[in-house]
Amino acid sequence: MSQKDETVRPEARLPKGLFDASAGEIRATAKMLATIRDVFESYGFEPFDTPAIEYSDALGKFLPDQDRPNEGVFSFKDDDEQWLSLRYDLTAPLARYVAANSTTLPKPFRRYQSGPVWRNEKPGPGRFRQFTQFDADTVGAASIAADAEFCMLAADTLEALGVPRGQYVVKVNNRKILDGVLEGVDLGGEANTAKRLIVLRAIDKFDRIGSEGVRLLLGRGRRDESGDFTKGAELTDVQAAHVMVMFDIAGMADDAMLAHKVPTKAHGASVEDVRKAEGIRADAIFAGLSPILIKRASGLQGLSELRELWRLVSGAGYDDGRIRIDPSVVRGLEYYTGPVFEAELTASITDDRGQPIRLGAVVSGGRYDGLVERFTGEKVPATGISIGVSRLLYGLRILGKLPAETTQGPVVVLVFHDQPIENYQRLVNQLRKPDEGGPPIRAEMYLGTGKIGAQTKYADKRGSPCVVIQGGDEKAKGEVQIKDLILGAALTSIKDRDEYLKKQAEAQFAVPEEKLVEAVRGVLSRHKA
Amino acid sequence: MSQKDETVRPEARLPKGLFDASAGEIRATAKMLATIRDVFESYGFEPFDTPAIEYSDALGKFLPDQDRPNEGVFSFKDDDEQWLSLRYDLTAPLARYVAANSTTLPKPFRRYQSGPVWRNEKPGPGRFRQFTQFDADTVGAASIAADAEFCMLAADTLEALGVPRGQYVVKVNNRKILDGVLEGVDLGGEANTAKRLIVLRAIDKFDRIGSEGVRLLLGRGRRDESGDFTKGAELTDVQAAHVMVMFDIAGMADDAMLAHKVPTKAHGASVEDVRKAEGIRADAIFAGLSPILIKRASGLQGLSELRELWRLVSGAGYDDGRIRIDPSVVRGLEYYTGPVFEAELTASITDDRGQPIRLGAVVSGGRYDGLVERFTGEKVPATGISIGVSRLLYGLRILGKLPAETTQGPVVVLVFHDQPIENYQRLVNQLRKPDEGGPPIRAEMYLGTGKIGAQTKYADKRGSPCVVIQGGDEKAKGEVQIKDLILGAALTSIKDRDEYLKKQAEAQFAVPEEKLVEAVRGVLSRHKA
Repeated sequence: MSQKDETVRPEARLPKGLFDASAGEIRATAKMLATIRDVFESYGFEPFDTPAIEYSDALGKFLPDQDRPNEGVFSFKDDDEQWLSLRYDLTAPLARYVAANSTTLPKPFRRYQSGPVWRNEKPGPGRFRQFTQFDADTVGAASIAADAEFCMLAADTLEALGVPRGQYVVKVNNRKILDGVLEGVDLGGEANTAKRLIVLRAIDKFDRIGSEGVRLLLGRGRRDESGDFTKGAELTDVQAAHVMVMFDIAGMADDAMLAHKVPTKAHGASVEDVRKAEGIRADAIFAGLSPILIKRASGLQGLSELRELWRLVSGAGYDDGRIRIDPSVVRGLEYYTGPVFEAELTASITDDRGQPIRLGAVVSGGRYDGLVERFTGEKVPATGISIGVSRLLYGLRILGKLPAETTQGPVVVLVFHDQPIENYQRLVNQLRKPDEGGPPIRAEMYLGTGKIGAQTKYADKRGSPCVVIQGGDEKAKGEVQIKDLILGAALTSIKDRDEYLKKQAEAQFAVPEEKLVEAVRGVLSRHKA
Repeated sequence: MSQKDETVRPEARLPKGLFDASAGEIRATAKMLATIRDVFESYGFEPFDTPAIEYSDALGKFLPDQDRPNEGVFSFKDDDEQWLSLRYDLTAPLARYVAANSTTLPKPFRRYQSGPVWRNEKPGPGRFRQFTQFDADTVGAASIAADAEFCMLAADTLEALGVPRGQYVVKVNNRKILDGVLEGVDLGGEANTAKRLIVLRAIDKFDRIGSEGVRLLLGRGRRDESGDFTKGAELTDVQAAHVMVMFDIAGMADDAMLAHKVPTKAHGASVEDVRKAEGIRADAIFAGLSPILIKRASGLQGLSELRELWRLVSGAGYDDGRIRIDPSVVRGLEYYTGPVFEAELTASITDDRGQPIRLGAVVSGGRYDGLVERFTGEKVPATGISIGVSRLLYGLRILGKLPAETTQGPVVVLVFHDQPIENYQRLVNQLRKPDEGGPPIRAEMYLGTGKIGAQTKYADKRGSPCVVIQGGDEKAKGEVQIKDLILGAALTSIKDRDEYLKKQAEAQFAVPEEKLVEAVRGVLSRHKA
């Protein structure tokens, strides 16, 4: 390959919204995913995986924040001219799989899946074009118990990841309630599908743009800070007011809870007291929703499902603040048809400059009874949950729930370039596969051209606990020097001369070559986390 | 969402060459990847990850088997009209990363990376359009010791995965030797770049198409079984003969080894005998290559590097048949510049119908000193290894080195639809998070609509070890029934009546509700793998 003569060199850069991952990030993510996996496995879900590429028509167009067809996904044509797309979530591929294999799958089919998804959107802070999701779904179960299970799974997963009870909440609602409200103000039916979608996405942005922002989007539209204008749903003031009532009901319910003077947990209340208060709050919400849904079949069905879900999670004791009813939760994905929920971390978190961060939902999900039907025409109820892995990792890090990265760098065998390199290769092999047994020691031979000083600096940069040194003199004596870099670095802070000499002797010492592994293990055990 | 009225439904299918992965496959892969990761970590490599999408020009065009630009990769335009591609390997993205971050990285930079790559090629048996690679690379080390390390890493990894010594071989060569041979027949220089590439790819296909196939591709071209014609390099007969000599040298060397009558391992030879024989064989290859490379600077440099590599792996004892010199190994990727190597499983393996399977290389790698230079103009030596995860998994499975999938299905709590579902939810929660502590038990409540018979069938299909049953009668007595499905299935083969009754009592029994966890643990321990 000879490209030296080319005048135009490619620039070493990544497309916007895409990022490399560091060792620390990968290790932390792997640890987090393992914990999530354990919880999902304990719930009986089985792993499953699909490829990154699907036929575009199989994925469908259910993304939020996309107003033109084909926007939001990365698409390209196959050599037979059929359109392919990168998956934008893990739910649409699951629906495709179930539709194709419905005769052989256990019913219900319960699987979890973890992997990257891609969104061809405008990237922003915390908004990437590739990110990892961790999903679980139950396909073939119409029972609200299946939805309730996912709400409890969300809570259990966050607790397994170290988020203390009280520092997160799983908020539940039902998409049919919004449908009922919209029907009530003459926005039902096929003709209003597009309008309902705009309303849905406006409400979903409540956390980010506030109630004033939502009201603008329900009306003519809203211009954001960047100057971009988003067209609104053009509801009348009366229609908009009916929708906005949804946001008020939770506030009224909180008032009802307070009016009953049930002590809250912050005031040392017992779990039973808290559950009682939460029950009063939920009943107040149900009471508040009833009149605005009256005579609207889908709305009343939604309310009944929400009551049933609450009854189930209460029966399992999750009504202690872990799971709460919240009529303002709708979720932005078009394909939800029933219960919807999202979990968020409630601790106020701030960025490096002390500015509050609106992290948004770290877990979300809902029922999507129409996705398999798209393919087969046959109704297949389905419900599931999705964890935004990167966002949750970020949240856990800020909450201090991720232990600092403690993986030690490798032991580095330094190389005197005038000595036969086989000698060093033998030393490093000895560490990696000790003759005397025991676990391997992470080790490498220095492979660059630097002198001993540069080599030690390299070892420091790699986070090596120690280096192994064998020049001609040591070799002649059948010895190796071991230099403890961590102890060595601490030497400078020692004032007392005797103490300094003692520590210095500990920090660098010679042993016979056959004691190499033992001596290195000794140094490693000094610095165990 | 209402799509019922659409007359055209999407078909539930996957594009060709793409596949879903089952639970067993995912579990086996995860286990294999964990073992590889442990070995790579012990060698001092750090994890690193890059996104799936890169700028097309950053990836470059180094794929084998593609004759037109842009073929071989999936590409699409970003909204600013720049071309993006899905990565086709993990090496090109690494080069991009190193070029962009050279000032801050440790030198050498040693990382491992695992993930899917995509090739927009004609799929075939064992040839997918998405597959997983597991790579390790050392960037910034010109030393042949860095290449030797990867050959040893390949061997160590295969052994860690359970492939016995003698059932695999790591074959090493040097790309510069081929360059020297081609220079020797007037095929050097810029003008012959395209021709050399065709020669390279022809030789790389030797294992698949044999020496006659290679000779056709060196000449006018070859028509394969499917009728497709591949244009050849149009070498003269004399030029082609010189290239074909490479294949003969290994054969001559094997003869030399045999002529020396060194006993082989198959005849009970000691490791030292084998190493002696392998040394004779290597020397015979070096002796055979010398005359055809004479006065060709790059060829002689390649030979000298190959000798150095052999010396290093011999010094570490890997010259016992684990690593061998093979002049016919060239690897198909255009970007290699020095040592190249590939590991294959040597046991003869057959498919379901007893037909021999040509698995090809399961590990491969080489030096690519020009990849970072493409971006920066600055020479950065680099070398690395790549494991074809799916292919290796397939090979291990056929060799019987993957233990059968032993993960038990979840315990299923059956549901009588006339009973309150909260009761069953409580039982399942008890199993998942036992009050008495201990590890969680994988468990789920049946969420479908089937009757008890259908529910038990579902549990069977899920591989459940047992089901938990509580009808109205049991509830009234504060009891649960536990039915051991594995023992139950074995009952039919018992002839003796007493034995049958005894086993039947073990297979289904009642316990007080508070003994549920203990009793289920008892059943699970009966069926531990």
